Amino acid sequence: MAISRIQHEGLRQRLMSAEAAAALIPPGAHVGMSGFTGAGYPKAVPQALAARIAAAHARGQDFRIGLWTGASTAPELDGALAKVNAVELRMPYQSDPTGRARINAGEMEYTDIHLSHVAQYVWFGFFGKLDVAVVEVAGILPDGRLIPSTSVGNNKTWLDQADKIILEVNGRMPEGLAGMHDIYYGTALPPERLPIPMTQADQRIGEPYLRCDPAKVIAVVETAQGDRNSKFAEPDAVSAAIAGHLIEFLQHEVKRGRLSPRLLPLQSGVGNIANAVLAGLNNGPFEQLQAYTEVLQDGMLDMLASGKLSHASATALSLSPEAWERFERDIDFYRERVVLRPQEISNHPELIRRLGLIAMNAMIECDLYGNVNSTHVMGSSIMNGIGGSGDFARNAYLSIFMTPSTAKGGKISCLVPMASHVDHTEHDVQIIVTEQGLADLRGLSPKERAALLIERCAHPDYRDALRDYFERARRGAPGQHTPHLLEEALSWHTRYLRQGDMRAAT
Amino acid sequence: MAISRIQHEGLRQRLMSAEAAAALIPPGAHVGMSGFTGAGYPKAVPQALAARIAAAHARGQDFRIGLWTGASTAPELDGALAKVNAVELRMPYQSDPTGRARINAGEMEYTDIHLSHVAQYVWFGFFGKLDVAVVEVAGILPDGRLIPSTSVGNNKTWLDQADKIILEVNGRMPEGLAGMHDIYYGTALPPERLPIPMTQADQRIGEPYLRCDPAKVIAVVETAQGDRNSKFAEPDAVSAAIAGHLIEFLQHEVKRGRLSPRLLPLQSGVGNIANAVLAGLNNGPFEQLQAYTEVLQDGMLDMLASGKLSHASATALSLSPEAWERFERDIDFYRERVVLRPQEISNHPELIRRLGLIAMNAMIECDLYGNVNSTHVMGSSIMNGIGGSGDFARNAYLSIFMTPSTAKGGKISCLVPMASHVDHTEHDVQIIVTEQGLADLRGLSPKERAALLIERCAHPDYRDALRDYFERARRGAPGQHTPHLLEEALSWHTRYLRQGDMRAAT
Ligand SMILES: CC(C)(COP(=O)(O)OP(=O)(O)OC[C@H]1O[C@@H](n2cnc3c(N)ncnc32)[C@H](O)[C@@H]1OP(=O)(O)O)[C@@H](O)C(=O)NCCC(=O)NCCS
Ligand SMILES: CC(C)(COP(=O)(O)OP(=O)(O)OC[C@H]1O[C@@H](n2cnc3c(N)ncnc32)[C@H](O)[C@@H]1OP(=O)(O)O)[C@@H](O)C(=O)NCCC(=O)NCCS
Repeated sequence: MAISRIQHEGLRQRLMSAEAAAALIPPGAHVGMSGFTGAGYPKAVPQALAARIAAAHARGQDFRIGLWTGASTAPELDGALAKVNAVELRMPYQSDPTGRARINAGEMEYTDIHLSHVAQYVWFGFFGKLDVAVVEVAGILPDGRLIPSTSVGNNKTWLDQADKIILEVNGRMPEGLAGMHDIYYGTALPPERLPIPMTQADQRIGEPYLRCDPAKVIAVVETAQGDRNSKFAEPDAVSAAIAGHLIEFLQHEVKRGRLSPRLLPLQSGVGNIANAVLAGLNNGPFEQLQAYTEVLQDGMLDMLASGKLSHASATALSLSPEAWERFERDIDFYRERVVLRPQEISNHPELIRRLGLIAMNAMIECDLYGNVNSTHVMGSSIMNGIGGSGDFARNAYLSIFMTPSTAKGGKISCLVPMASHVDHTEHDVQIIVTEQGLADLRGLSPKERAALLIERCAHPDYRDALRDYFERARRGAPGQHTPHLLEEALSWHTRYLRQGDMRAAT
Repeated sequence: MAISRIQHEGLRQRLMSAEAAAALIPPGAHVGMSGFTGAGYPKAVPQALAARIAAAHARGQDFRIGLWTGASTAPELDGALAKVNAVELRMPYQSDPTGRARINAGEMEYTDIHLSHVAQYVWFGFFGKLDVAVVEVAGILPDGRLIPSTSVGNNKTWLDQADKIILEVNGRMPEGLAGMHDIYYGTALPPERLPIPMTQADQRIGEPYLRCDPAKVIAVVETAQGDRNSKFAEPDAVSAAIAGHLIEFLQHEVKRGRLSPRLLPLQSGVGNIANAVLAGLNNGPFEQLQAYTEVLQDGMLDMLASGKLSHASATALSLSPEAWERFERDIDFYRERVVLRPQEISNHPELIRRLGLIAMNAMIECDLYGNVNSTHVMGSSIMNGIGGSGDFARNAYLSIFMTPSTAKGGKISCLVPMASHVDHTEHDVQIIVTEQGLADLRGLSPKERAALLIERCAHPDYRDALRDYFERARRGAPGQHTPHLLEEALSWHTRYLRQGDMRAAT
């Protein structure tokens, strides 16, 4: 069985252990690994590499790598390498707790970029040469082409750009994955670029397999381990309320004729709130929906199963163990309805704008004027990264950001006078939703946005203080377009840092 | 001569005075006017409308309108209406001093949006109904189609979307403008959108004339007055130094093989620095350049004349009186080399990314971590607006921002610890240039960016203070990804507001 996954004669000759493969990665290498959320990441080589690097460090040797991926991965990759301080520069996205701690301790550099930009920046040469690709696949065809695994991410680019390739062939991946992917080989560098010929979210424009030059493959490693994606919490009252407001809003847009009852293709971030919104849509009034998104998570699988969602396009299958079981059981059903694409296509501005998505993403905080922070806690510490949220928010038909109105048990207001970091500017944010309500900021001036956000979205514990800031700024600010009192614009954050609570001591 | 400009029989019947036309615009109307920079704006009706509104106000009557344009206009439009406080909500961009004063005094609401978003948001219904369009044209054809004037901007959308149309036929516009425009009618609303069939910056994909339903035209007014664009200053030492650094960088990119000697299509903001860069390019080593930009200004005209620039695509001709004379004299030469397009096309993310532009825009300030403020002074007061800078910066091949290292005679550092407003986030900014030097931020982590920006771009008067902030933040910040001391992150701005100088008293 395992052998039948490697149908290319020459590549079978390159079979070796993960340790032997890891030994081929030199210090200082730029390594492009597969992986997007806990899906499709290499399961063995990163851990062997971590062990090798730990041993080198124990001998007092320098050994670190540049680590490039699709997006976040799993403990066996990001966690293992961060634990032994193996990463010099990480890009483009990570959410591993150990990696986060390293970055925030100043021990690891991190370049957090739009996910749609990654592949082209590497092609442009902006990150230097890619030395080694480590890519998980579900199988190797006789001619050397690869059956992709549960995520596509940047794998096409890594395989094309790397000098050397290490393949992990994962026997645990269902063979029924074959045919689910759509790898577009029509990209080019300017001035040779052409329109991307896609006009429907479910359209296939490429090939089902990854091309790979067997001459570049220096190692093939066999694994047999499933992905690792965690289960989401059942929707709680807060996330259910957010979902409720959002669905009511969409119904209102349909009534006003600004959306058809089929809506437009949905993009949804991951996380508990996103999942609650999808659960709400699954029980909601809309039929024959479509998704054009980064990640297919449990909520969307349920919607495909129920028929609410006709089809979904993504770059990764980010399914909890329970959902994965259903997916694997009915893989023929899902292969008809799911397309997995490179992230440069799933997140492409050209396509997002053309298809006219409804983009729904979570955020950390938002300020009175509609500037959104998706990445930083208290201005300095990274949480995860911008991911694809900017690709979607800027180019969508509707750009929606969601958050509970407070964090840390009420000690933090997610609506603040001034955001401590900005990832999505006032120009890119249309709808803000908290469990308190929804603010439709389209067409509003900054002051109109502030008034609406305070009334609709703020937590009652913070509403008066926000009103007070806004009213005093309307008298005392040096300008009345975006009235700010700079002396105290960030005082809620500094108060939290000092006393662990944004609420003024009473 | 004047009559021959209106070749449609029925529309000749609608000829009337500007006052009579202005009387057809009701209080509270949303009015879409032509105009992009000081080009192609209606010359007579706005002033007549201003007079009408002033008279109503004198009688104690409420009378204000919503004013939508392509971008900024001229004193006869924005200035005249702002002076009499005639504008309730202005969008999407303005740079008039009287308008700016009204906005910053809190007397006029302003919605500052990406110029590529305007047309589609109006089509989507996000700004409500467009009641009246007031559009300057160079002539009316027998079948009612319109010869556009010196800017296209949002005119196509205003003519399509408005209930009623007022045309200003400007006899001063050269007849040779006919044929210079390319109006693309292939746009649609999602889910009906198709790829935009453009792969070259100089390609024509539309029609030379604007379609217009004569039944909607309620008035035709004749005018005979030129545009009003001001002359730029001759490049001074600071802007010449910025241009020098930039050209050296581009040469370096050519040497590294990341750009061809023809470069890629240039986008350039307007203003003195932009003009100095163009003058530098006109005397520089690159040949057969192309431009895909918003505005064709003097510097580009010189480059077309010299042959350095093979062709230019823009949405407006923003030429000083001197340059205009040359343009008019050699209009047949320029008609071969210039295409004027709707701004939804000149600024379209799909096209900017496909063509791979080199985007060069000015900014107000930038912070240590590469976040750029293009719009606000001291966090609260609007300067102009984001314009197309976000459309270009996000989607360009190279995203370059330029500024002198100081403003107000050295009292303001344009490199600050934390930007007081963010329009272009760290994810969208690659190259920063001041007269001190150039910082190439591509691929760098936030701390690497800070170190480089301080050394390369800061003014010597502020370099030590920036280093001091950065070093203390590297010790005292609550997180080391983007180290900030929030208590003092905005203290340079508050110091300036208090004492008129960002430099600490010595
Ligand atoms: C913004 C984001 C962090 C929210 O994550 P989430 O899982 O939906 O939300 P949670 O409420 O569980 O918050 C996550 C963490 O942020 C903290 N947090 C939330 N709001 C906060 C705030 N205003 N200030 C400080 N911390 C905050 C929470 O306390 C929690 O921390 P903990 O794990 O230590 O308890 C996450 O969506 C993200 O990383 N987004 C950026 C990328 C993106 O949008 N990708 C998707 C689309 S392409
Ligand atoms: C950013 C922008 C204001 C710079 O304008 P410019 O004419 O090139 O630059 P100047 O140096 O003349 O600065 C303009 C004004 O801003 C002020 N200014 C510049 N930097 C400043 C700073 N850091 N803090 C406060 N004021 C500042 C200048 O003093 C000057 O004010 P003044 O007219 O009262 O003297 C202008 O480019 C803009 O509006 N950009 C946004 C839109 C855009 O990029 N469009 C183009 C492309 S599509």
